Amino acid sequence: MAMTGVLRPGFVQIRVMEMEPCLKHYRDLLGLVEVSREEGDKRVFLKAFDEFDRHSIILRQADEPGMDVMGFKVDSPETLADIKAKLIGEGIKVEDIPAGEQPGLGPRIRFVAPTGHHFDFYAEIEASDIGPMTKNPEIWHEPPRGMAAIRFDHCLLYGGDIDGTANIFRNLLNFRTTEIVYDEENKMTIAIFLTCSTKAHDVALVRHEADNKFHHCSFLVEDWNAIGHAADLMARYNVSVDIGPTRHGITRGQTIYFWDPSGNRNEVFAGGYSFYPDHPTRTWTADQTGKAIFYYEKELNETFLPVVT
Amino acid sequence: MAMTGVLRPGFVQIRVMEMEPCLKHYRDLLGLVEVSREEGDKRVFLKAFDEFDRHSIILRQADEPGMDVMGFKVDSPETLADIKAKLIGEGIKVEDIPAGEQPGLGPRIRFVAPTGHHFDFYAEIEASDIGPMTKNPEIWHEPPRGMAAIRFDHCLLYGGDIDGTANIFRNLLNFRTTEIVYDEENKMTIAIFLTCSTKAHDVALVRHEADNKFHHCSFLVEDWNAIGHAADLMARYNVSVDIGPTRHGITRGQTIYFWDPSGNRNEVFAGGYSFYPDHPTRTWTADQTGKAIFYYEKELNETFLPVVT
Amino acid sequence: MAMTGVLRPGFVQIRVMEMEPCLKHYRDLLGLVEVSREEGDKRVFLKAFDEFDRHSIILRQADEPGMDVMGFKVDSPETLADIKAKLIGEGIKVEDIPAGEQPGLGPRIRFVAPTGHHFDFYAEIEASDIGPMTKNPEIWHEPPRGMAAIRFDHCLLYGGDIDGTANIFRNLLNFRTTEIVYDEENKMTIAIFLTCSTKAHDVALVRHEADNKFHHCSFLVEDWNAIGHAADLMARYNVSVDIGPTRHGITRGQTIYFWDPSGNRNEVFAGGYSFYPDHPTRTWTADQTGKAIFYYEKELNETFLPVVT
Amino acid sequence: MAMTGVLRPGFVQIRVMEMEPCLKHYRDLLGLVEVSREEGDKRVFLKAFDEFDRHSIILRQADEPGMDVMGFKVDSPETLADIKAKLIGEGIKVEDIPAGEQPGLGPRIRFVAPTGHHFDFYAEIEASDIGPMTKNPEIWHEPPRGMAAIRFDHCLLYGGDIDGTANIFRNLLNFRTTEIVYDEENKMTIAIFLTCSTKAHDVALVRHEADNKFHHCSFLVEDWNAIGHAADLMARYNVSVDIGPTRHGITRGQTIYFWDPSGNRNEVFAGGYSFYPDHPTRTWTADQTGKAIFYYEKELNETFLPVVT
Repeated sequence: MAMTGVLRPGFVQIRVMEMEPCLKHYRDLLGLVEVSREEGDKRVFLKAFDEFDRHSIILRQADEPGMDVMGFKVDSPETLADIKAKLIGEGIKVEDIPAGEQPGLGPRIRFVAPTGHHFDFYAEIEASDIGPMTKNPEIWHEPPRGMAAIRFDHCLLYGGDIDGTANIFRNLLNFRTTEIVYDEENKMTIAIFLTCSTKAHDVALVRHEADNKFHHCSFLVEDWNAIGHAADLMARYNVSVDIGPTRHGITRGQTIYFWDPSGNRNEVFAGGYSFYPDHPTRTWTADQTGKAIFYYEKELNETFLPVVT
Repeated sequence: MAMTGVLRPGFVQIRVMEMEPCLKHYRDLLGLVEVSREEGDKRVFLKAFDEFDRHSIILRQADEPGMDVMGFKVDSPETLADIKAKLIGEGIKVEDIPAGEQPGLGPRIRFVAPTGHHFDFYAEIEASDIGPMTKNPEIWHEPPRGMAAIRFDHCLLYGGDIDGTANIFRNLLNFRTTEIVYDEENKMTIAIFLTCSTKAHDVALVRHEADNKFHHCSFLVEDWNAIGHAADLMARYNVSVDIGPTRHGITRGQTIYFWDPSGNRNEVFAGGYSFYPDHPTRTWTADQTGKAIFYYEKELNETFLPVVT
Repeated sequence: MAMTGVLRPGFVQIRVMEMEPCLKHYRDLLGLVEVSREEGDKRVFLKAFDEFDRHSIILRQADEPGMDVMGFKVDSPETLADIKAKLIGEGIKVEDIPAGEQPGLGPRIRFVAPTGHHFDFYAEIEASDIGPMTKNPEIWHEPPRGMAAIRFDHCLLYGGDIDGTANIFRNLLNFRTTEIVYDEENKMTIAIFLTCSTKAHDVALVRHEADNKFHHCSFLVEDWNAIGHAADLMARYNVSVDIGPTRHGITRGQTIYFWDPSGNRNEVFAGGYSFYPDHPTRTWTADQTGKAIFYYEKELNETFLPVVT
Repeated sequence: MAMTGVLRPGFVQIRVMEMEPCLKHYRDLLGLVEVSREEGDKRVFLKAFDEFDRHSIILRQADEPGMDVMGFKVDSPETLADIKAKLIGEGIKVEDIPAGEQPGLGPRIRFVAPTGHHFDFYAEIEASDIGPMTKNPEIWHEPPRGMAAIRFDHCLLYGGDIDGTANIFRNLLNFRTTEIVYDEENKMTIAIFLTCSTKAHDVALVRHEADNKFHHCSFLVEDWNAIGHAADLMARYNVSVDIGPTRHGITRGQTIYFWDPSGNRNEVFAGGYSFYPDHPTRTWTADQTGKAIFYYEKELNETFLPVVT
């Protein structure tokens, strides 16, 4: 078989404190499409223009920023049942979430990882009626707007026991490790990048004193030119920028980090390599962490490690 | 499991009539690296700068151009054995090729497809010692040269029973159909694009009166800018260009088609979408074939259909 | 003095047969801004986002396509008077057009060139109130739309006595010849490219059997990426494309030629070299005309020479 | 007349402390061509691939970094004589430098500006025999190497009486002010950008406590993609980077600042607007200096103001 099991990050639910400025940010600047709103605007569902599924970003009105949950789409209900069995078999508590908790989404299973993050898995979601065309398709319905985000791509999450969380993804969910930052002196993994596809990362983990922390969610854009256009938009419209345009050593992706109006970090990124299961894991030594993260600057900025939500 | 079975197109062996001009073409213009030569330069082995495997392009001295064989790398010897059993189970004759027929390559199995093409499968190939760096890696050893081909990407093959060949890839090898051009009037598939990964195509087939024909092998480049640079190099150094720079409707890839000095068609391409197994197959009607192939021109040029090797 | 006399092509007045589709073309696709309309929509005035002057493109409702007149802005009323005197001194008839024939435009002088084209010169035009910002300026007010045309850049005009027209520009208006295509056998200039600045061309002339013909007006876009985006928009919205994306040998500009709904040819172009008065004129021999015009294709298409308005 | 008088920055002579590492920097990384060396390698002359003149960058072996002199090419010996007369008429001391002090260069005049900088003017320099092709020209002889610097473009110089220096350029040499940073509170100009062409700057001045200081010399590259490639090369080969990739508010240019091995600051830049003499000067208030200099970061880094050579 070719591509099976867990397919990709399917959604992320993010907490925002003021819905309208955040909607403006994700919809008008990142270029996402607003799909639907819950009563009272408690949650707003959005998608990127090139995604087939109904939605991929959920903004939830809350008192503090952060990530509620990251969801992965799997290839079939059988896989979903299989994952559930494997998790339970390892003594991991699995929660069943019935279809409909999100509009259009089928039944989910959820587990809380050793780092405190909530991960969901599901096999079914409604197809978007504004997804890519499939019959004599144009390249897009309308020209992408704003930063022209192609898809929700991955999350970087901070927490304590990143080895524990990574092992679940690797051993039970068949993710591969694409890159790792390892502190030889303290025999400690500092960062782990994991993939379930040929992407350089579908989810990544960084060791941190506090659990269940959200570093950023990332959106794919077309290329370095799109990174430049995103930088122009951020400057013009006073988006708070963390760092960039720059390039990562890890993944080789070209990137800008910035904040949404509620303080959640976003990334737009482009490029990077394709990873196949027969490829070796790339490793970085702790003293090269700066270059690993920011290939151009060769050192961390003041915010990369401490500022999370 | 995430990404299993057949991983990717691993090599293509191409017949060339004059080795030195062709080497100059593939090495100095496309930017491939020459890895080794057989005695008497009967075959020369090359690779792209961003590939981990020992080689991916084999030029064989011959009396006429064309493709000898396209090889796919699989994830394990077990998969290789499994594929062999499945093929035999379907009554397809499988040839065993012992390790060493190509330097550094492990044992292969080969079958001849209904369209007459030779397809090889193998699980083992030596790692290149000039592949991507893996310890505190730089983005490349040296700046990529020429057109900066990132990898051998896919082939487009012409033959009669493309449904027969496609069915082997789909049913026995678990490839997915990403796009199809279908002639409703004659109830006939004109073209099929198949993937074993998230690429928009790993191999593609077009219906043709003659079997075992080679339309082109394709090399990935970074982006539209790299396509432009490739066009500059072709113009400056009098490479014979078929068409481009343009964009495909199918795959949405940006592209130039051109010929090597022996008349084999090459492609450099960039962009296009990612395909996941839950994505629908895109379909084109026969009357939209022009737009499907050349999105900008909306019609075929004089060479796309008839000129093959 | 540094940059004096004739500054640049300031406007072009184009005849269109159906105003609304053409407006949609120039405004929504090319990305120009509609500035004002004459009563009865006899003429509509537009400008590019990065121009300071009130307008630069005038569409005039007419029965057939073509160019009415191309206008050049000069640096002062003194220069205008000086040009008038020089033209009259050479026996060229000069028409005075009073201020206000176009809204916001000062007094003009006009002469009809040996090739039959009407050329206007003026020193004064109202500043646009949506021109580039000048106090703590943002890079733009709003992100440029559509093909993001930066400015009206130049025209290519066809006619008989191109040497006669060129000589007026060279001898009386101090334009320089940047490139020339010369037919040695017939001792005849085929094409002349002229500049009054450091651009590779401000106006260009091609020898043709009929006088007063309009080949195209050209709009500058940012770079090769913008050319690609323009190609996508043309394909998506069924703009009739003449040729491209490609590159010119002459000027080295990257280009697409296409038609407005009334059959006038437009160009979007990017790149090319800067020309200084001490630079040599580049020359092309007649047998290299194909490569001179289309550097990638190395031959003319069927429309470049015969199709004009 | 169209483009007259002072044409452009023609050369800059830079002091370097170790010639070979600097040559490697300017030649192999920036992509300049080494033209000639003086006996004992006291000076090495280089040029960019797209320049017609013999050389444009001179590296002089010295004990400390900095700029010896910036030279401007004028359009004729008559202009040179005229400039000399004007300078003398204003009581400015003019030094005559005979032809041959630099190989291939004609007679020069030199004055020392109020800010202490040496400025040369000359009308004649040998044409390079590896300049751009002019007969049926290819776009380049060989693909540009390294960062693919197109030309030496401008210098930014620091000193005390920048108004005095600017006035000479404006009043005697007919330069125009494209942008200015003005401190309203202290009634003081902080920075002035001057052009003798349609470039956004040919020379720029920043107020500083010490005279005759060199902030950077700048090289034009093709576009944002070239900026990205330059950043990759700097990171890969450990070039010391000041800031970037980023964009300037002033000029809108896309940029990276970095240091040569002797501590002289270089810039590669792309983009920005064209400036015509009828365009208004853009003005920045002192409180917006950060955004004026670094449009993305909106604040100065620690080195922009204090670090000069």
